[in-house]
Amino acid sequence: LHIGMIGLGKMGMNLVQNMRDRGIAVTAYDLNTAARTQVAAYGATAVDSLAALVQALTPPRIVWLMVPAGTPTEQSIETLTGLLSPDDILIDGGNSFYKDSRRRAAALSAQGIHFFDAGTSGGMAGARRDGNFMIGGEEDVFPRIAALFQAIAAPDGYLFTGPAGSGHYLKMVHNGIEYGMMQAIGEGFEVLAKSEYDYDNAAVAKMWNHGSVIRGWLMGLAENAFTADPNLTAIKGVMHSSGEGAWTVEEAIRLHVPTPAISAALMARYRSEAPDAMSGKVVAALRNQFGGHAVDHQ
Amino acid sequence: LHIGMIGLGKMGMNLVQNMRDRGIAVTAYDLNTAARTQVAAYGATAVDSLAALVQALTPPRIVWLMVPAGTPTEQSIETLTGLLSPDDILIDGGNSFYKDSRRRAAALSAQGIHFFDAGTSGGMAGARRDGNFMIGGEEDVFPRIAALFQAIAAPDGYLFTGPAGSGHYLKMVHNGIEYGMMQAIGEGFEVLAKSEYDYDNAAVAKMWNHGSVIRGWLMGLAENAFTADPNLTAIKGVMHSSGEGAWTVEEAIRLHVPTPAISAALMARYRSEAPDAMSGKVVAALRNQFGGHAVDHQ
Amino acid sequence: LHIGMIGLGKMGMNLVQNMRDRGIAVTAYDLNTAARTQVAAYGATAVDSLAALVQALTPPRIVWLMVPAGTPTEQSIETLTGLLSPDDILIDGGNSFYKDSRRRAAALSAQGIHFFDAGTSGGMAGARRDGNFMIGGEEDVFPRIAALFQAIAAPDGYLFTGPAGSGHYLKMVHNGIEYGMMQAIGEGFEVLAKSEYDYDNAAVAKMWNHGSVIRGWLMGLAENAFTADPNLTAIKGVMHSSGEGAWTVEEAIRLHVPTPAISAALMARYRSEAPDAMSGKVVAALRNQFGGHAVDHQ
Amino acid sequence: LHIGMIGLGKMGMNLVQNMRDRGIAVTAYDLNTAARTQVAAYGATAVDSLAALVQALTPPRIVWLMVPAGTPTEQSIETLTGLLSPDDILIDGGNSFYKDSRRRAAALSAQGIHFFDAGTSGGMAGARRDGNFMIGGEEDVFPRIAALFQAIAAPDGYLFTGPAGSGHYLKMVHNGIEYGMMQAIGEGFEVLAKSEYDYDNAAVAKMWNHGSVIRGWLMGLAENAFTADPNLTAIKGVMHSSGEGAWTVEEAIRLHVPTPAISAALMARYRSEAPDAMSGKVVAALRNQFGGHAVDHQ
Repeated sequence: LHIGMIGLGKMGMNLVQNMRDRGIAVTAYDLNTAARTQVAAYGATAVDSLAALVQALTPPRIVWLMVPAGTPTEQSIETLTGLLSPDDILIDGGNSFYKDSRRRAAALSAQGIHFFDAGTSGGMAGARRDGNFMIGGEEDVFPRIAALFQAIAAPDGYLFTGPAGSGHYLKMVHNGIEYGMMQAIGEGFEVLAKSEYDYDNAAVAKMWNHGSVIRGWLMGLAENAFTADPNLTAIKGVMHSSGEGAWTVEEAIRLHVPTPAISAALMARYRSEAPDAMSGKVVAALRNQFGGHAVDHQ
Repeated sequence: LHIGMIGLGKMGMNLVQNMRDRGIAVTAYDLNTAARTQVAAYGATAVDSLAALVQALTPPRIVWLMVPAGTPTEQSIETLTGLLSPDDILIDGGNSFYKDSRRRAAALSAQGIHFFDAGTSGGMAGARRDGNFMIGGEEDVFPRIAALFQAIAAPDGYLFTGPAGSGHYLKMVHNGIEYGMMQAIGEGFEVLAKSEYDYDNAAVAKMWNHGSVIRGWLMGLAENAFTADPNLTAIKGVMHSSGEGAWTVEEAIRLHVPTPAISAALMARYRSEAPDAMSGKVVAALRNQFGGHAVDHQ
Repeated sequence: LHIGMIGLGKMGMNLVQNMRDRGIAVTAYDLNTAARTQVAAYGATAVDSLAALVQALTPPRIVWLMVPAGTPTEQSIETLTGLLSPDDILIDGGNSFYKDSRRRAAALSAQGIHFFDAGTSGGMAGARRDGNFMIGGEEDVFPRIAALFQAIAAPDGYLFTGPAGSGHYLKMVHNGIEYGMMQAIGEGFEVLAKSEYDYDNAAVAKMWNHGSVIRGWLMGLAENAFTADPNLTAIKGVMHSSGEGAWTVEEAIRLHVPTPAISAALMARYRSEAPDAMSGKVVAALRNQFGGHAVDHQ
Repeated sequence: LHIGMIGLGKMGMNLVQNMRDRGIAVTAYDLNTAARTQVAAYGATAVDSLAALVQALTPPRIVWLMVPAGTPTEQSIETLTGLLSPDDILIDGGNSFYKDSRRRAAALSAQGIHFFDAGTSGGMAGARRDGNFMIGGEEDVFPRIAALFQAIAAPDGYLFTGPAGSGHYLKMVHNGIEYGMMQAIGEGFEVLAKSEYDYDNAAVAKMWNHGSVIRGWLMGLAENAFTADPNLTAIKGVMHSSGEGAWTVEEAIRLHVPTPAISAALMARYRSEAPDAMSGKVVAALRNQFGGHAVDHQ
């Protein structure tokens, strides 16, 4: 196996190391020169352009794109469309919107290029080893890349999910579930924090992660976080988001699927982005208007 | 009619004025001397103790209690229990918990005293004139106070609701609905505030209050608030709460009634009470743990 | 004033009557022959094509489009684009998506036609008289139609809201608020229905609508509904939706505005569309898996 | 070690087997004769009364109570209070409300009996082996039962959490988190079910459980459930609940902790208990009132 890897950020760099550990040859490209230098230390060959990357691979090629969703992915695929040959395989391992992936698959297919959308979970640690992949694309072409996923995924940790788009769709829903699970965990620890008891958050998370119904990777990560900062005093509770949770709710709206918990989690994220909210001002002003209830002033 | 009014706060003082306007004699008591002085200006007789108030009324008496729910109400009723005579009527116009009202009704009933729980809506303006009352108690005794409510309520603005407790229960649910309605209005104005359009909030509220589906008193109050402070920049969005919304959700939980919107409104209130939340810290920490996503620092 | 009205459904027919009551001349068109016959009874002139309608009006014309959002509106505007003359005014009074309105305004503007998006609230009763309108478009052209809105709207019941799109945007948010308010009202009555007290729903709604904080048109409508069917036993709780509430949440997501109550209301609508939900099956199955808790079988 | 086990239901019976596997002597009691017969097969000694159970143990005794929360637990503890001796230890492994546990601890303490509230997670499988326990009580007495938990818990799967009540409190919050996580998982699978793709639910759950961010025991259980019934067609989505999730929200309300996702999950459970909801009827009726929108009839 010889993989062309485009994008050496947090995920791409770990994936290269993962592949190298499994004896997979990697030719890698990133805009960033330092990343190109670093990747060589893992035994990959760095090149300085997409054209060079394509040239370094013997057709039929396998190219893995691991750049941010949106414009970077769009532009890379546009360029690659002009460089790749019929029967080459292009894998988008990023968090692209599934409709984009479906559109790209159709466009590439017209040129004989096989597109796979590979939703990638497991975080940086999973990219590094024992990753998790949900892969959409042409079923009869998938066998050509099955060994790649077999090598870099956790045992049983990859799945061919159907036609192009189905991989990123599943990753989108995965992230929606993740939003709900994380919010629920956060809410639980906030109840504990305000309770009359004096819990050791790290010890609680560790205990819950060993044998309880809510054990899982997130609980283990909570243990790590609380071990580093027992009450998370150093950080703000601003919950940024990169889109998949929002897409899940938008898709739920489109399909008329009730997703109250995931929606509540999404709304909690938006609420966290600012210290105050206009909605609260309106309610406070209304209470003042009808009942003379005091408002807090700036 | 001669009413003994206990409690001359924002609501009680307005009720006295309302009653005086309708030619109802009022003997009034409050701990606060200034309030006692003020009430005389409205033509009420101020007294300096509960005992004096009871003495000033001719049996069978009608006493209206308008003090904060909880300890003040409990202690006042305890004292009054020792002062009132069989066949006297005691009205609790405050926001007591319905189970307290039911308990008090039973205890007073054992002494022949008739208790009514009169949930009072309409804010200070309603207390002043055209109020709104939902009244629980003994059905066959209610006619003795019907004229009182007829006088101070808005036309069609009072209702005998059933046995003791049913008035405060209905007021509790009224406030739960109010939480949901106010939160929805607040959310709508926040969408407007962040939109690309430049709406005049006061003008919008005014227009919506004249002919739209969502017209109502709250929309009129929104117009007032926005007229005074077009973007509510002077106030913080802290939404305090005094209990009835929370009781509504607790009652919904007890009855297994799904109240997702009212619950969401209640949770938004709690979220508004502090600029940050532990739940957000946990989610931010987890995102950092698995994906290396940056956290905001204090 | 002479208005060309296109679309004689529930809203359009009432608007024609409203306009006729105010002495406004109306030429009307609908695909439906019966509607065309009916409109004549109100003193309007019925025509059998868009072309005839345009021809019947003296330039510069005012045409009001009142057909369902989406394809019907799109197609009507397409046809009208070929029929109208520079300086004519086209008003879309339907529930179009604001981005569609913005796009249409730009396209029509290129031909010198002035487009206004007039969000219409107040239901059928408001269309009939004392309606509510939020109108976006060219500010310097608006005076030409101000008298029209002055005539058919409730006093203070219309507002020029800014550039094209701003009217339908405001109507969208109005409906989002409406979703939250209606859900809160519904939840409150469900708590009452399951309570130990025996409330008369129509009497409660009537009383709440006279003097309470939550008084408003919706509460009056609740009184009507409960008067007709005291416990709504004849109808199912299926809450259909036509899009604006969903758009409000989608817009909130786009703007990162927390709208937990409106979202909860939207999700409650979707939940109501089927008697069961897959999410519930999954939770029931999980409880069975870990705790042996019995599941309900089909 | 010699444990007296009271209650041989799904959890108690598995705990006895777990203890027996670890070489712990068990004397067991249950009202049910068949359960008493069965427990003997696991090498435990069955007795036919609480008195006999207490008598069979050498003081200072260790008694584990594993009966339903509420009346059964209350009555058992009442009886045991008359039977146990000073310095005996009584462990409540059930799902009691933490305030009950605190009260019971105080009452038993007055007689020199040491009470521990041991929240038990991990389901029946965890009771059987590698369980999860969160234990409140007297810190200086805990070492006398540490070996018991060391034996029956998963490695790192138990925690002494502080004074009496803190164990059941933590279990309550654990279940609250569980509600949120399960609802989020359910919602995700419902989006998948209504999507245009044709996912193999069991394969998805299995893949997600191997390397993804949302891997955990619940995902493994989802795999089991979907393997048995690929689309859960045989079961209804009725989500029963036994109290801890509700208590978590009630506690959150008491502490003013925003728990929007857990609350949404709780409300979804209540919504699932009936095929229709009064709130939906009200909304449908209101839509009909203002807009003439058709309602679905029974």
